[in-house]
Amino acid sequence: MPAPAPVLAVSTVIFSLRPSDTTGRMALHIPLVRRIREPFQGSWALPGGPLECDEDLSDAARRHLLDTTALSPTYLEQLYAFGAPSRSSDPAAVRVVSIVYWALVAQVSGHAPALVDGDPNVCWFDADDLPDLAFDHRTIVDYALWRLRTKMEYSRIAHAFIGDVFTLAQLREVHEAVLGRDLDPANFRRMIEASDSVVPTGEVLTGTKHRPPKLYRYSPPERSPLSENNEIPV
Amino acid sequence: MPAPAPVLAVSTVIFSLRPSDTTGRMALHIPLVRRIREPFQGSWALPGGPLECDEDLSDAARRHLLDTTALSPTYLEQLYAFGAPSRSSDPAAVRVVSIVYWALVAQVSGHAPALVDGDPNVCWFDADDLPDLAFDHRTIVDYALWRLRTKMEYSRIAHAFIGDVFTLAQLREVHEAVLGRDLDPANFRRMIEASDSVVPTGEVLTGTKHRPPKLYRYSPPERSPLSENNEIPV
Repeated sequence: MPAPAPVLAVSTVIFSLRPSDTTGRMALHIPLVRRIREPFQGSWALPGGPLECDEDLSDAARRHLLDTTALSPTYLEQLYAFGAPSRSSDPAAVRVVSIVYWALVAQVSGHAPALVDGDPNVCWFDADDLPDLAFDHRTIVDYALWRLRTKMEYSRIAHAFIGDVFTLAQLREVHEAVLGRDLDPANFRRMIEASDSVVPTGEVLTGTKHRPPKLYRYSPPERSPLSENNEIPV
Repeated sequence: MPAPAPVLAVSTVIFSLRPSDTTGRMALHIPLVRRIREPFQGSWALPGGPLECDEDLSDAARRHLLDTTALSPTYLEQLYAFGAPSRSSDPAAVRVVSIVYWALVAQVSGHAPALVDGDPNVCWFDADDLPDLAFDHRTIVDYALWRLRTKMEYSRIAHAFIGDVFTLAQLREVHEAVLGRDLDPANFRRMIEASDSVVPTGEVLTGTKHRPPKLYRYSPPERSPLSENNEIPV
């Protein structure tokens, strides 16, 4: 009997920023779902599931993201298709090829958004302090982190974590949380100003300070040929 | 009756450099295969086909590339998974999700490598002068071209088109062919020298010139977490 054809699934690595439990500083967090079935019963895994017959790939990613975080992404991009024949630990299991997306979810009032109410099998985890993950999901998360941190250096990805208008200090805090290290404020200001990616709005942050900080917004992004159909442009 | 599950295929956009039929200058070329079955019988399409049951995704891409060009790629990277439900023109057809790779094939003695001997249904086409393509393959090629040309600006991708050792003029010719425009030699030299991506070998090109040009090689590349398993590093 020939082996059954590989099955398609869509999974998503979802990033948001929330204060670290240990340091209190903003840090990258990822929602994970505890598996209630074998294989890997009891292990944490990325949210995801099968592709519906008439569903676009990115719609499937959005659906699983909505089911997990009850929110819409501010950025969604296809990451990679993972399909090594050995990725399930069970040789008798049907082979699954996972098309993986990565998504950014903006903070709501300075906090990562709430997950499904009261379900102990869905939790946010610090991206740099994850439990053991099912299947090859650790490899997938490591690759998503690498893409996010690499992309941060040359793109406007931070935009998806914060609002349309921000101070340079707020933008630097996002970069620091994603990169996991402190950045020199003066160097950061020079780097951002040289990149042309951010422009002053002409307004300042109203509030308590004697010298209120200037507000900035992103200049219009360059778009890829797939931006319109498959990706939410940053 | 429920719709049948989507079927997986692997296709590859293969780039090589060869002299343009019209200008004689080096230009990007892509091998295409003429379809001998409906749908799109007689149309040109990307080489590809189903994934074997126990075959890794990149191995399937390499196999289809070998079948088409009889050569191994100098660069192979996953491009994108295309899976819109509407991508076949026939609503009754089984839905196909294509995981697409892009590959670079080095010149052999200054020419794009030979394709399968004497088969009129497999031909090289100028990437900027393609015939109508089957399915959504035109969208796929446009995206691959965009990725190649974008990546060219900040990476060592040209390496895959030429040998390990090259002159700056040879490197500039590759950049010009990929980008489809002339580059100022002095600016190009400054840009390359500033990038730290290329280092002098200490040798010069032996031959006819009074002042033989220096030879260069690429410095070791940064690797992504997936380089070892899934990609051929540049």
